[in-house]
Amino acid sequence: LPVPPRFEKICIVGVGLIGGAVALAAKKLGLAGKVAGYCRRPEAVEAALSAGAVDECSSDLRTSAAGADFVVLCTGPASIADIGARIADCLAENAVVTDVASVKGSLVAECRKVFEGRARFIGSHPLAGSEKRGVEHSQEFDLSGAVCVITPDQDSDQEALTVVREFWSELGMRVLELSPEAHDFCLARTSHVPHMTAAAICSTIEENDSDFCASGFRDTTRVASGSADIWTEIGMFNRQALSVELRRLSQQLNQVADFLEAGDSAALRSFLEDGAKQRKKILERK
Amino acid sequence: LPVPPRFEKICIVGVGLIGGAVALAAKKLGLAGKVAGYCRRPEAVEAALSAGAVDECSSDLRTSAAGADFVVLCTGPASIADIGARIADCLAENAVVTDVASVKGSLVAECRKVFEGRARFIGSHPLAGSEKRGVEHSQEFDLSGAVCVITPDQDSDQEALTVVREFWSELGMRVLELSPEAHDFCLARTSHVPHMTAAAICSTIEENDSDFCASGFRDTTRVASGSADIWTEIGMFNRQALSVELRRLSQQLNQVADFLEAGDSAALRSFLEDGAKQRKKILERK
Repeated sequence: LPVPPRFEKICIVGVGLIGGAVALAAKKLGLAGKVAGYCRRPEAVEAALSAGAVDECSSDLRTSAAGADFVVLCTGPASIADIGARIADCLAENAVVTDVASVKGSLVAECRKVFEGRARFIGSHPLAGSEKRGVEHSQEFDLSGAVCVITPDQDSDQEALTVVREFWSELGMRVLELSPEAHDFCLARTSHVPHMTAAAICSTIEENDSDFCASGFRDTTRVASGSADIWTEIGMFNRQALSVELRRLSQQLNQVADFLEAGDSAALRSFLEDGAKQRKKILERK
Repeated sequence: LPVPPRFEKICIVGVGLIGGAVALAAKKLGLAGKVAGYCRRPEAVEAALSAGAVDECSSDLRTSAAGADFVVLCTGPASIADIGARIADCLAENAVVTDVASVKGSLVAECRKVFEGRARFIGSHPLAGSEKRGVEHSQEFDLSGAVCVITPDQDSDQEALTVVREFWSELGMRVLELSPEAHDFCLARTSHVPHMTAAAICSTIEENDSDFCASGFRDTTRVASGSADIWTEIGMFNRQALSVELRRLSQQLNQVADFLEAGDSAALRSFLEDGAKQRKKILERK
């Protein structure tokens, strides 16, 4: 195992809940000479500094990124390539860049192009989330024990891949690999569809139903309280896989309605048994 | 307020998780001279007695029910009218009978007929559930604070309605009234659709997705671990309302897929904002 600090300067672009948690963990583990942050809004710079998440913080992107040998882009997927283009020429030579976005799509190929000849990009997605937002909740937000997906493709730099894999491992995360495309379809099924469905269930609730929403309703719709901005971005960015998987679920629900209308209790039972069995299998594997 | 014990003999038909919790609460509050239980299986009789949920327990239905002036039917909706028919002539005169089933449908009218001239039936549905089963979990299962829906119709006996309303109130429940039909549509939206959807989401998960199922997935699908037997019965019993509401959700999911395919991020955002707002309103009212 390498002796820390491994990096001279880590730059966290977007010191919110997850960016803050990554920064805190990197500092605690002594992975870098210093951890610098970037936040767009001056209030967020203040918040990041007073949470002790970063050693220095700025609302000037290139100041934050200057000379960094490891960068974690913690913004939404839609702005990652653009931010990459703005910082590529001020990073340390051969810097390694990763991100935390929930959608990969064409991002990996785009970022490779953006950083070409200057830095090496490997996509990451730590599967840790919360409806909470902001660096003030980062301290209670534990990445360790969770899965982090990294999404190399056939053109990824193998040394950078090792650096990124080891970074998340040192944070205590279980690192798994998927291609960018497999990641997006998998996450559509396991996260984005459940999110859209929770919102859809909430939107079908009628004015006088509130009193009759019990704990099952609360749990099944918890994620619907997440940020509409973030989830619009995730949804649009993953629209291809997500629309396919949403239509698949929609069809499955119509099929259940068919079972009910046909009075086919055997089919309904087998559908419910399958769901319970699948869930058990999923939770047992974890 | 009346002085307990209000009833000479309460009979709990089906001493499982909820029946056990009702029995324990009634005993603790001294609402009856004695609380008798009925369980179909001899092992369940033993479990009910050793959990201290009931004063006496039998696997002979008519022995358990003999002379009871208050009966709580804690079986699934499909067997309630049948059990009613088997005990009607052995209850105390003018006994009051209620149930805890999650679906009402034609049950209220059917039960009135079954008990006609012998006892008075009022439908109830305590909105408290768990994936756990069995009287051994009843002690930790707190009904107080939860909503109990009672479902009178135009022909309900007003005195019996008061008795049932006060019974649940004394158990600390917030008692609300809905017609049997309104109850079934409301519960389809707030409970049965979320349940079927959780099962559907689990069934769309693929073999290698397990590692990528995070806390959002776990919460949104929690209810899918419930008993397939119970939920098949609930689904079939409420098939009219449930199929309507499932098709409504299915259509909503297709519409989200349409937004995605059309690249309509404004429509997606407005859908997500509406879901988050609705959920907040629902939780704030509670």
